[in-house]
Amino acid sequence: MFEAAELGHAIDKATYKTEVPKLREALLDVQFELGEGKQFPVVLIISGVDGAGKGETVNTLNFWMDPRNIHAHAMGDPTDEELERPAMWRYWRKLPPKGEIGVFFGSWYSFPMRQHIEGGKDADYLDTYLEEFLRFERMLAEEGALVLKFWLHMSKKDLKKRLKELESKKETKWRVTKKDWERVDMYDTLRPVAERVLRRTSTGHAPWIVVEASDDNYRNLTVGRTILKAVKERMASLKKTKSKAAKTPFVSASKDDLDGINVLESLDYTQTLTKKDYNKKLEHYQGRLNQLCRSKKFRKHSLVCMFEGNDAAGKGGAIRRATAAMDARFYDIVPIAAPTDEEKAQPYLWRFWRHLPRLGNVTIFDRSWYGRVLVERVEGYCSDADWQRAYGEINDFEEEMARHGVIVCKFWLAITAEEQLSRFKEREATGYKRFKLTEEDWRNRDKWDEYVSAVCDMTERTSTAMAPWTLVEANSKYFARIKVLKTICERLEAEL
Amino acid sequence: MFEAAELGHAIDKATYKTEVPKLREALLDVQFELGEGKQFPVVLIISGVDGAGKGETVNTLNFWMDPRNIHAHAMGDPTDEELERPAMWRYWRKLPPKGEIGVFFGSWYSFPMRQHIEGGKDADYLDTYLEEFLRFERMLAEEGALVLKFWLHMSKKDLKKRLKELESKKETKWRVTKKDWERVDMYDTLRPVAERVLRRTSTGHAPWIVVEASDDNYRNLTVGRTILKAVKERMASLKKTKSKAAKTPFVSASKDDLDGINVLESLDYTQTLTKKDYNKKLEHYQGRLNQLCRSKKFRKHSLVCMFEGNDAAGKGGAIRRATAAMDARFYDIVPIAAPTDEEKAQPYLWRFWRHLPRLGNVTIFDRSWYGRVLVERVEGYCSDADWQRAYGEINDFEEEMARHGVIVCKFWLAITAEEQLSRFKEREATGYKRFKLTEEDWRNRDKWDEYVSAVCDMTERTSTAMAPWTLVEANSKYFARIKVLKTICERLEAEL
Repeated sequence: MFEAAELGHAIDKATYKTEVPKLREALLDVQFELGEGKQFPVVLIISGVDGAGKGETVNTLNFWMDPRNIHAHAMGDPTDEELERPAMWRYWRKLPPKGEIGVFFGSWYSFPMRQHIEGGKDADYLDTYLEEFLRFERMLAEEGALVLKFWLHMSKKDLKKRLKELESKKETKWRVTKKDWERVDMYDTLRPVAERVLRRTSTGHAPWIVVEASDDNYRNLTVGRTILKAVKERMASLKKTKSKAAKTPFVSASKDDLDGINVLESLDYTQTLTKKDYNKKLEHYQGRLNQLCRSKKFRKHSLVCMFEGNDAAGKGGAIRRATAAMDARFYDIVPIAAPTDEEKAQPYLWRFWRHLPRLGNVTIFDRSWYGRVLVERVEGYCSDADWQRAYGEINDFEEEMARHGVIVCKFWLAITAEEQLSRFKEREATGYKRFKLTEEDWRNRDKWDEYVSAVCDMTERTSTAMAPWTLVEANSKYFARIKVLKTICERLEAEL
Repeated sequence: MFEAAELGHAIDKATYKTEVPKLREALLDVQFELGEGKQFPVVLIISGVDGAGKGETVNTLNFWMDPRNIHAHAMGDPTDEELERPAMWRYWRKLPPKGEIGVFFGSWYSFPMRQHIEGGKDADYLDTYLEEFLRFERMLAEEGALVLKFWLHMSKKDLKKRLKELESKKETKWRVTKKDWERVDMYDTLRPVAERVLRRTSTGHAPWIVVEASDDNYRNLTVGRTILKAVKERMASLKKTKSKAAKTPFVSASKDDLDGINVLESLDYTQTLTKKDYNKKLEHYQGRLNQLCRSKKFRKHSLVCMFEGNDAAGKGGAIRRATAAMDARFYDIVPIAAPTDEEKAQPYLWRFWRHLPRLGNVTIFDRSWYGRVLVERVEGYCSDADWQRAYGEINDFEEEMARHGVIVCKFWLAITAEEQLSRFKEREATGYKRFKLTEEDWRNRDKWDEYVSAVCDMTERTSTAMAPWTLVEANSKYFARIKVLKTICERLEAEL
């Protein structure tokens, strides 16, 4: 794999001086078009052998291009705010919005590679990460990002030569540290690992481009031209009329029309509680939840609760009964409404990632990332391909949370169509509940059956051991609230 | 001051039960209107004696109201990301956008009060903070925020009683810590300090409301009703046609029309450098800047450079020569264009605060917060009152940065009208510079004189010892770039 990058590529000074202005003009042109059109983001990874000139490459790119919409990210040691969230959170928060270029030094690959090479972690450990990165990059690509991964390569001989050269000059001597020489010693260990990583994670939508880095001119020109070509091609392909891709049929037996039996139908909506019983249980579970959220063990976890459900199923009321048991300083409720323009310029899940809680904290999502496979599916707000791939992306998202110790509770509050109608009518009549009823609620109601299908598919495909769905029979508000509280308590007790 | 809150206010259970539903309905109504209209944010401070029920009050508010647009912020110990920025950064990042309610526990007042009471800091120390808070809250108010500050008061006797009551019950015993009893001992020290703080910082636009907190019912109802009344009144006043306030004339002698002499006219635009001289100096200053940014001392500072100037004055080129000396991982260039909708929902300076660098890092603003007193003033994008108060707000902002060790360099790149014309024509002719010239540039040029006035006023009012303006004669690009680099180097050397 690296042999092709040890051919002694070099560009003489005269050629470089002729080529750079041309390349620069072309880069500025596409960059301008990219910034104006805001059609897609460009995610660049600059990785490779230490000493191969990653920093110089990025500095050169910044100098050639309009530095106002290219941003480089160091990604050194994570901050405490980053350490308290799932590992990928720090990359999500730095993702470039549409129309901009984000450059990641080393990137998400650095940490597991270092752990494998220097930290004694085995190949399986590394592979787990690689699988995750593959899915992450596929998601980025499917969200429209142009992902290019550069690996700057140098032979061991050239690397030694470069370090000696740097050491020989007064003005560059500082750049060579003891660690650099230690890395030369590690070279033979790194090489096969790097090869394996590149082989396994080079995909059509997020390829690795190995660049021979011994000659600065060659390296810079190659990286610059590759970016130019890729951005131009992507722009051109977007201009073409979308070819009608053969539609993959979405098949599902989760809502069986043969006998009408499905998870929602099979719930017992008659379950209820007397007021007395409710009050007793409410006090009991709120007390338990309060203790759990204050426990020392919880400080090493965080809790994400997510409420979906039929309109008027009582999400707000259930949420309030849960938060009443918590300290207002440590929970936050995030209502999911229309995305802001900053959110629209990012991959779909970005607006949820940004709200993940710190350790010891709780985030409650009132509606959630499941919007994509519910309202967006039913109303046709996104393409079929988009919501169909969302199941997998959502499972990845929740897996990342779970692996970091985030306890994920997902509730679907289910009521029957009759119960909904009577609640709508009650809302129309009651003063301070009036605002809760909108035109949209009535429209959604007309699509009841489509929502049933969507819910059945959703629970089938995304109820996992790490992040199970709890279907809550909510015709009785008392019953529903207690079931929610009890579920949260039991999940916390099981996980802490 | 606190005597009025030691009268033994109490609301009996029956009254409370009658009053709460009415208050709640009214609160939900105004909250709904607030959220729909998105006209202004509500900033609530819940402060007061420890043990007076701050947490319970906020929990009650959250329970009464729609918790989806009310967010409580604990503001415990700052994170490392927060510690690396000016003290107020952590509050700026949590400010509620228009249409939402943000609740700050203790808030910005806690830290200096604690330092004064427990940390041995004197009254002058506290006063410096209070002055800052006054200006901050005035800015919030002038940006349209409704600011309400609650001080929950309890007499020492009642406080002791409350702690004993809590200790006596199994389910609340955990809430009383050793620290709580220590604070009872500190009560007599706290009281006069609190009184002084409240007296000095209670203003018409951000009043302190002292609430007797011994009786939970009275406390909750009072806080709830006060909020209701204030939000309703604010809404009503916004609905009234704006009375034409007497316009304060803006007087300035910074651009004297008598003899045409002003800071811009008095610059020597003929200064230039030969290419040879430029190259030599460029290498010299870039080397120096590089060393400075890598120095150990710089890791305890950060650098904010800000570029304003005539169109085509060469801001981009000057910025690129500076960043060429820096490590791309540690600087970021923030071009200031139209605000996003998240930015529009916040006070004017919010979009700049969010980009302040961490320690050891550099943020370069390509155009800046001075937009308000330049383009917004000249084009009439904001009211006269808005840009006139901006000078003071900007000075406060820069003072906060400077006090935190942020080194602020501000450049105005000045060219003559003739030079600008020739550059515009050159841009029209040159390929990769075409995109730099817009219709707007020609329009701005027509207002040359108005911009001169604005620049003269700006430099006169905002060039401070902590954050001085550097006017850069930029008819010669070589001369300008070197002057910029030299200035940054010398500022860093003076500060480190």
